[in-house]
Formats: sequence, structure tokens, C-alpha cells
Amino acid sequence: MTKTQKFKNLLSSNNLEFLMEAHNGITAKIVEKTGFKGIWASGLTMSASLGVRDNNELSWTQVVSMLEFMNDATELPILVDGDTGYGNFNNVRRLVKYLERIEIAGVCIEDKVFPKNNSFLESGQELATIEEFCGKIRAAKDSQNDSAFSIVARTEGFIAGRTLNEVLDRAYSYAEAGADAIVVHSKKSDSCEIDQFMDLWQAEKPIIIIPTRYYQTKTDHFREKGIRMVIWANQLMRGLIPHVEMLAKKIYEEESVCSIESSIAPLHTLFDYQNTVELEEAEKKYLHYRQRLPKDKSITTKNEIV
Amino acid sequence: MTKTQKFKNLLSSNNLEFLMEAHNGITAKIVEKTGFKGIWASGLTMSASLGVRDNNELSWTQVVSMLEFMNDATELPILVDGDTGYGNFNNVRRLVKYLERIEIAGVCIEDKVFPKNNSFLESGQELATIEEFCGKIRAAKDSQNDSAFSIVARTEGFIAGRTLNEVLDRAYSYAEAGADAIVVHSKKSDSCEIDQFMDLWQAEKPIIIIPTRYYQTKTDHFREKGIRMVIWANQLMRGLIPHVEMLAKKIYEEESVCSIESSIAPLHTLFDYQNTVELEEAEKKYLHYRQRLPKDKSITTKNEIV
Amino acid sequence: MTKTQKFKNLLSSNNLEFLMEAHNGITAKIVEKTGFKGIWASGLTMSASLGVRDNNELSWTQVVSMLEFMNDATELPILVDGDTGYGNFNNVRRLVKYLERIEIAGVCIEDKVFPKNNSFLESGQELATIEEFCGKIRAAKDSQNDSAFSIVARTEGFIAGRTLNEVLDRAYSYAEAGADAIVVHSKKSDSCEIDQFMDLWQAEKPIIIIPTRYYQTKTDHFREKGIRMVIWANQLMRGLIPHVEMLAKKIYEEESVCSIESSIAPLHTLFDYQNTVELEEAEKKYLHYRQRLPKDKSITTKNEIV
Amino acid sequence: MTKTQKFKNLLSSNNLEFLMEAHNGITAKIVEKTGFKGIWASGLTMSASLGVRDNNELSWTQVVSMLEFMNDATELPILVDGDTGYGNFNNVRRLVKYLERIEIAGVCIEDKVFPKNNSFLESGQELATIEEFCGKIRAAKDSQNDSAFSIVARTEGFIAGRTLNEVLDRAYSYAEAGADAIVVHSKKSDSCEIDQFMDLWQAEKPIIIIPTRYYQTKTDHFREKGIRMVIWANQLMRGLIPHVEMLAKKIYEEESVCSIESSIAPLHTLFDYQNTVELEEAEKKYLHYRQRLPKDKSITTKNEIV
Repeated sequence: MTKTQKFKNLLSSNNLEFLMEAHNGITAKIVEKTGFKGIWASGLTMSASLGVRDNNELSWTQVVSMLEFMNDATELPILVDGDTGYGNFNNVRRLVKYLERIEIAGVCIEDKVFPKNNSFLESGQELATIEEFCGKIRAAKDSQNDSAFSIVARTEGFIAGRTLNEVLDRAYSYAEAGADAIVVHSKKSDSCEIDQFMDLWQAEKPIIIIPTRYYQTKTDHFREKGIRMVIWANQLMRGLIPHVEMLAKKIYEEESVCSIESSIAPLHTLFDYQNTVELEEAEKKYLHYRQRLPKDKSITTKNEIV
Repeated sequence: MTKTQKFKNLLSSNNLEFLMEAHNGITAKIVEKTGFKGIWASGLTMSASLGVRDNNELSWTQVVSMLEFMNDATELPILVDGDTGYGNFNNVRRLVKYLERIEIAGVCIEDKVFPKNNSFLESGQELATIEEFCGKIRAAKDSQNDSAFSIVARTEGFIAGRTLNEVLDRAYSYAEAGADAIVVHSKKSDSCEIDQFMDLWQAEKPIIIIPTRYYQTKTDHFREKGIRMVIWANQLMRGLIPHVEMLAKKIYEEESVCSIESSIAPLHTLFDYQNTVELEEAEKKYLHYRQRLPKDKSITTKNEIV
Repeated sequence: MTKTQKFKNLLSSNNLEFLMEAHNGITAKIVEKTGFKGIWASGLTMSASLGVRDNNELSWTQVVSMLEFMNDATELPILVDGDTGYGNFNNVRRLVKYLERIEIAGVCIEDKVFPKNNSFLESGQELATIEEFCGKIRAAKDSQNDSAFSIVARTEGFIAGRTLNEVLDRAYSYAEAGADAIVVHSKKSDSCEIDQFMDLWQAEKPIIIIPTRYYQTKTDHFREKGIRMVIWANQLMRGLIPHVEMLAKKIYEEESVCSIESSIAPLHTLFDYQNTVELEEAEKKYLHYRQRLPKDKSITTKNEIV
Repeated sequence: MTKTQKFKNLLSSNNLEFLMEAHNGITAKIVEKTGFKGIWASGLTMSASLGVRDNNELSWTQVVSMLEFMNDATELPILVDGDTGYGNFNNVRRLVKYLERIEIAGVCIEDKVFPKNNSFLESGQELATIEEFCGKIRAAKDSQNDSAFSIVARTEGFIAGRTLNEVLDRAYSYAEAGADAIVVHSKKSDSCEIDQFMDLWQAEKPIIIIPTRYYQTKTDHFREKGIRMVIWANQLMRGLIPHVEMLAKKIYEEESVCSIESSIAPLHTLFDYQNTVELEEAEKKYLHYRQRLPKDKSITTKNEIV
């Protein structure tokens, strides 16, 4: 099954489904190994992993390059956090083309303006008009080659302090413009905004949430409200930071890795994640001169091989 | 002080100095914050982080792109694990040019042949001839623009099962060809090979080791033997794997982030690493229309701003 | 029809078919507009256009980036000059994966060693052993997803001064290893080497030639010899150089473009090649606020748009 | 002398100076060889050469990659057509950092909004407010490391149909914000707009023009009006198109390159532009095993070399 179809199936599932954040190849592999069915390629954590801000400091092709590594690293479908689409409708069309090419399952674009600000920062959020954003959605849908590729529309209405009415208006407009699902974002510490929205939402299109701030809300509550998908958007990055800080501190202070060696993965775990076995098998098949080398003697220089 | 000079100073330090592995922007920032004086940009862990193998599956310009992010993320000097230089002497020259341009402090090249195999893998290691590798070193030295840029030569002689005599011969030849320091690599579980080498090594050029396998050897032993620099080459990557696996597993099984929230970094830690404060200050200075927006009302769409 | 199938059809055509060199998007578009049925993405001219040498100074991903632009610019199938595959069989596998992803029709790899030298340079040519090169071909064939993707094997036997027997041996071995076609290269000023080869060649696999040096041989002679495809490998690049030199010289000397204006393409030709009409149509459809702007008044700033 | 200083000197020259368009490595080399003192890296022609539109279809890092090739290909200073700076002031800062790193001499940014439209297209032009654009200029100046790096501000006021007063207002504001020179663009077929502007312009900052449409105006007239620099912005690209079309057509129709061979550059001209001589010299110096090969016998495979 294609990755686009896998994600489509998650969107139409009768269960509440979950996407787990990843920000590079190794975290994508870990998420897959854990059992998750899909990945959220987070703009925030991809930026952070590369050391830059979540303000479109990365060019869109730099993002695509990272996504290509992530996608190659996993069989899971990836929903990409595509920010605003990196410009106008034409930039969105180009983004969709490049994402389809690297076999990404879908892209989520949001109704802010380029260059974006992270939703949790205190500096203000500007929103695109509904008409402008619907133009992007329609352009995205019209430009996809694979009918199973998903265009998810994210409204930052609550984030920007807009009324419930406007948020509903935006969501219905985006659904009508062709979005395959709607992300309703909120930065409240409880799910009140989401609850109010869900109580009034009548359309068929699945609603996706990102409970970063209202993480204490019970997951069953989301089920009851009819949410279809939950995105854990940044926890792996946030989790690795204090751990890596601790490891680095110990090595620095002790001038030794002795005391941490038993708690870190052995090298072969790393090699397993890199699937070195496959390469060793392939070398036997395709790498003629290595095949002939006697196993029991060390290899001499290439130029000396007889 | 330039990063190249900072690294040069580490090489000529009277103390044993340490480089800590990093593989992307965030780990580079953590290493800097911890107090380390230099970074090892590991080929193994950069590859692993992107989900590919340490067999030159990344193109050399993909490596340079990652290094540019890392270098921008830190004030520390970075010594790059440059594998074999990604081809012949001419490829090495191009690599040096690109690395100097992004302000990397130095590059370490090794006497294997392209495409390389990771030193800890069981499949055999081929070595370049001494003459061929010295040509690369001389070409690298002749092509650097900044006289403080370091060319470090790494011999995989012990890894490939060569004799102590050959390893010494290689090291002396590389030093004579102009290498600023020599990495002597070993995959024994104790430092016997390194010790034998150091007992006979007479040249001024600093010796660098990578005690991944012989991690139990006391650091003071390295000091006594006259080692100048120790590279902790992959421990942060190896440390984050089981931790991220654990976090992902908990979130997957509990369908909630509640129980891990207190152990992961708060969002503002992420924003601090990204230096969002600088951007907020800069917005006040350079972003005219935001400056004028009343703080107490939510921002309307860009098109509606008066 | 897919581009891979289009190229496959050219290979199995009963007519002598031609590929014309292109080295960037605009030359690919010109070749298509002229009527050619396929494009040769030349390593020599792509390198030259970017200002570097044909010695693998470009990384393989830089080549792929240029190919992506070229492929997006044309409906024609592109056969890529993939040099040696940029390393060993594993690098070839990765290359094939990336090329299929951007919808390239096929790749030609040659039996030299990485990093390569241009075939027409006087410095010597090293060849891979038959076994090593066949391993690459088999790895390439085994790794392609689209069964219509073509792997073309190029022997540089004649270029390296090998005997006719060895060249035949190489060609048969490559065909047997799975190559979809064989390029036999020669740098003689007549087709004698090619003729001798064709007189003895018995296999079904189509033979492709690159008559750069023996350009005076009549095309009908190639037909008679049973050649299936001719590659014009570098003539457009070689043709544009003296012309651009002449134009630049005139502008420089006359400090004016007046005398050349009538001989150069008007701006609208450039816009036509860029298909600006499609964008203008799309803007009407998707770019809401522009749609509403009165045609007869100049547009005010975005922020002032009502 | 650095390239930044070379360009600074052109800006402060007492003579009328000229920049010639280039769009890749080979055209940059041709422009240098012709005798020009500086290069205009045109957004329009770089886009066209890659087969895309001049509407920010290229990401800013794709542009930087092409600029790196161009800059490496020439000793001339390059002024980059940086469009709007690819976003807001922060994107401009990042652009300046990346351009300085690859040794570009200066960047020209224009007072349109992202994503831009080519100035000669009929679809409308939106302008940034003066305050917003001045913020970009100040941010650019504050972020440059090399004091000789030039920030050139381009006003599209005339292109967008604004009054002479507004264009002057814009130009004075940009100069005051720190721009090192001002480009005043016009798409009239005569220089009337430029003349009116120059008759009133009182500031010291040099004025640069792009007489694409008003090419018939005598160059001495520009001198009399006090213009300091003329940019020939797209003529080489426009000149190569009909010539390459003609060559391709002849080869296609004649199924032969015979009749054009004498009019195109010989291969050695291509090799000269690529400076293959330098590599051959370097091979003698650094490539050990080739050095030893007898000149009179063909080289055997690498693996067989003794």
C-alpha cells in the first residue's frame, strides 16, 4: 500500500489515531519501531534540530531535503508541517509537487502569512484572509498527481485570538475548498476552545488536534468529542534535550564515558538502525573483489589486490 | 578569535583536550553549553541521524550542508570527520574550500579508499597506499586559504590489521606530508595498540585518539602516554537512542504525554536554544508594522492592517 | 505515457534514434521544441555550464538537483550521463533511487573508476574490472522500481586503448549482466573502431554511439551498421560559447546593446519558455486579492489593499 | 583585493561602469574573459536557465547554490539580484550571511513583496511600504560582516506606476536607511522617467539603471545625467536562445553535426574554460600512482596497477 493511502486510511479510521513527531531519520525510525502508524514532520523540531528558528529560516528546499531523508528512513506515512506553504498558491503547488515526488503522504498548511512565527511565541500572529488561504488549498488539491495525497488545512484562528465564529467559518471554508482534514490549533492549557469548536462542527471532514499545551486533557475526552487524530508534535525533541544535556555534562565532568557506557546504546544498535546487514548481504552479491578476499587475512590496499 | 585559531590552540595545548561528538545543530549547541572546547562532527552519527549508513551514502555536499547548520549553531571550533575526502586529492581540495567557506576549523581525512566502510564493521577495510594518501594531505595543505585551518590525518592501519611498523610508517609519512595532527584509530577493547604506538612515536605532531572501544582505559593513562586530544566520537547519538525509544514507547502505550511531560524540556527551553529573544528584539528594530500594533488587541490579517 | 516507457520505446525502435545534449532547463526546453524525442544530460556540459570540471567535481546530489530542473522543464525522456555511478554498487543503487524519484528515464554508467576523467582528455583512463562493473549493473537493475527504467552500460574500452576483443568481452558481459543498451565510445576521428565492433556484435541489445570525434561519418553509415541510437553529446554547449562570447564582446566594446537587440530573443520569448501564461491563468483562479484589483489603476502596497 | 572591495570601487568610480548579466558558471567566465569589471547575477535569467519562472519558484538556497558556482567561476565581483530578500528582514539577514560566506560582492533587494513578479510582466506589482523596506535595508547593513559588502536598494516605484515624488521619496529613504547605491527601474521605452528622477536627485549615493526597455538611449546620455552604473540585465540569455534554437534545428533536420562543426567551439575551448591544465599539473604533483604510469602504454585497471 502506498504511503498516501496509508495516511488516507488513518484519516478515515473509526478509531482515534495518533501521529508522533520526528525530525530526522533516526527519530523517524524509532517512531516506526515503537508501533505508531504515522509521523508528524514538525517544522518546530526540524528547525530546532538544525539549530535554526521556526520562522522560515530554513528554505523550503532545505525542508524537503530533510523530509527526503526521513521518508527514506521509514515505511510510515509522513504528514508534513508545511507552515504557510512558503509563499503564495504557486509556492504551495511547487511544494506539493516536490513532496509527492519524495513519497510524502500529505502536507498540512496553515492560515498564517509568510514568513511565519511559531504559534506558541508571544509576538503576534497574522492570518491570511479566508479567500487567500482557500486559494492555496484549491491550488494544492488541483496540483496533486496522486489522488490519495492529503492536503490538511490548519487554522490558527484561536492562536491569533479570533472568535469561535470566525474559527468555524474558516474551518468550513477550508473544508469546502477541498481540504482533506482540518487541524484546529489552540494554546490554551485546557481543551475548552477545542470543545466549543467540536460541539458546533457539523461537517464530515476529520478534525485533528495538537494538544501540546492542553496535554492534561484525557485522551478519551478527545474520543468523545469526535476528534479523529491527535498529533504529539514536539515531545521527542523536548525529551532528548535534557537527556543529552545530562550525558554531555557527565562526560565533560568525568573526562570519561565509563559511567555512562552501560546506559547508552551499543554500536551494533546504531548499525541495526542503519540496516548494515542489508549492505553486507548486497556486498556479497555485487561487490566482486571483496567476495574473493580470504576471510582469514587482513585486506591489503586496493591497488595491491590480486 | 577565529574558529580555526581556537582549534589550532587546542592542538598545541599543554593539557589533554577533548572533542565531543555532535551531529546536528541542537547537539552542537548542547555540547557548547556544557563547556566543551571543541566538537567532532562525526560521519557515523551524522549519517545515522539522517537515517543512512556510514558508507558515503550521503554526498559530500549533503555533509557540507549539515556542517553549515552545525557551525552556525555554535561558537566552538568543529573538526570534521571527512572520511577519505570523498574521492581523490582533487575532491579533497574542493572539500577544504567548501569547509573553509563555512568557517569549519579543520578536517580529518583517513587512509581508506572511497567509498568507505565504518571502522567498527566486520567487513574488511581497504587502505590507500601511503603515497596516494600523502598526495591528498599535501593537496589539502596547499589548497587551504587560512593558514590556521587544520588538516588532520587519520590512519586506519590498526583497524585494517596492519603491523605497528606500518602504522608508524604511515603516521610519520602523514606528518611529513604536512598533517597538523595524527589520529591513530584502534578497535581493541584496551589501549595496547595505542600504547605501543605512543611508546615509539618521536615526532612533534600531536596524536589524537578515539577511545570508543577502549573506553575503560583511564584518562590519566592517555595523559601519561602523551596523547594530546581525545575524541568522544558517538556517545550522544548512542545515548539519545534508548531514551527516545523509551519516551516514544510510553507515549504510544499510554496514548498520552501526561506522565512524561515533567521530564521533558518545556517549550521555552527549545525557544532558548533557538535564541528567539534575539529575533524578538530584532523585530522591534526592523519590522515596522509589527512595532505599531497595539499590544492589547489581537492582530488582524495583514491585508487589513492600517 | 511515462518518460521511462518513452525512452524504452526509443531503444526498441526500428529507426535510428537521436538524443540531443542539454545541460539545464532552458536547453532542455529548446531541444524539446525542436522536435527531438529524447535528451542526453551530459556530464561534461552540465559541469561546464556550472563552471567546474568533468572530474566528479560536482557531488552526485548536485547533479541530481540539476537533473530535477531539467526533467521538470521537459516532457522528453532524459538519459542521464551518470559517469561511474559516483562510487561503488551501493552508490549506484542510491543514484537509481534518486533518479527514478525525479522521473528520469534512464541512466548510463561507464566502466571507469571514480573519480572519473573526461574521455577526451589526454591523461590516462583507468577501467574497472569487468566483474566489478557487472556488479554495478546488476545492483542497478535489481534496485529499480519501475521496470521501464533503463540502465545503459558504457564501455570506455576503446578510449582506454584496450583491444577489440576486450571491448567485445566487456559489452557482452554488460549485456548479460542486464544492461538495457550498450554505449560503445570511441575517440577516433573516424568510425573504424565502431565499425569493427558492429561487424562482430551478435547480441540483441541495442548499441548506442557518441560520434563527437567521428562526426564526419555519414549517419546512413550508422544505420547500415545496425546502430540504434546516436547521442549528440555536447554540441549545444559548444555552440553557445562562441556566440555568447561574440555578444558579450559587442556589448562591451560598444557600451550599448543597440546593435544586437534585433538579433536576440525579445523578453516575451523568455516568458514563453517559462510558461508565464499558465501562471497568469492560475493567478486568476487562486490568487484572490489580485483578482479583485481594478485593471486600470496601479496597485498600492499589500498592506493598503482594500 | 577582495571582490567586495572591487565592487565598492566600481560604485565609487568616476566613470560610468557596466555590469553584464551571467546566469551560470560558463557565462560568468565568458563575461570575465570579455573584459567586463563586474557581473549581474540576474534572477530572471538564472530562473530561465533552470527552466522556472521569475516568481520565486527557486528557493533562496537554490539561488545561493547557483551563485556559489558562478562566484567560484570568476574573479569578478558579482552583484546579486536578491529579489525582495525572499521574505522579511530576518530572511534578508540570513541571505546576507550566506552570500558573504560564498564571497559575493553585494546584493540588490527590491521594494516589492514576496513572492515577487517579474517587473516586465503585465500582472500587477505590489510594493512594500517604505518603512518595511527600510527595515530590511537596515537589517541587511547591520548584519554584514565585511564592511565592503554592498547593499543595493532597488525601487520598483515607476514599474508599479507610482509618481515621481514617491519614487524620489523611496530612493531618499533607502539611501538614508543605509543602502550603498540605488537602482531606479523603469519599463518605459525611453529614459524619460530616469531623466526626471536624475534631474531632481541630490544625494551622494550612486544611481544604477537597467536599460532593458530603453536600450536605444545613448550611453553618453546616461553619463550626462550622472548615472554611475548600467546593468545589462538579460541580453546573454536572450542572445543564446535563438542561436541554440538554430543549432538544434540544424542538427535535428540534417541528422548530423557536420555542417555546424566548424562554427562551434572545439572541445579544447571547453576544457580551457574548465581550466583542465591546472588539474593536469596538480595530478602530477599529488596523484602518485598516475605519475608513475608509463606514458606510452594504456593504463590497466586500478586493481591491476603495480
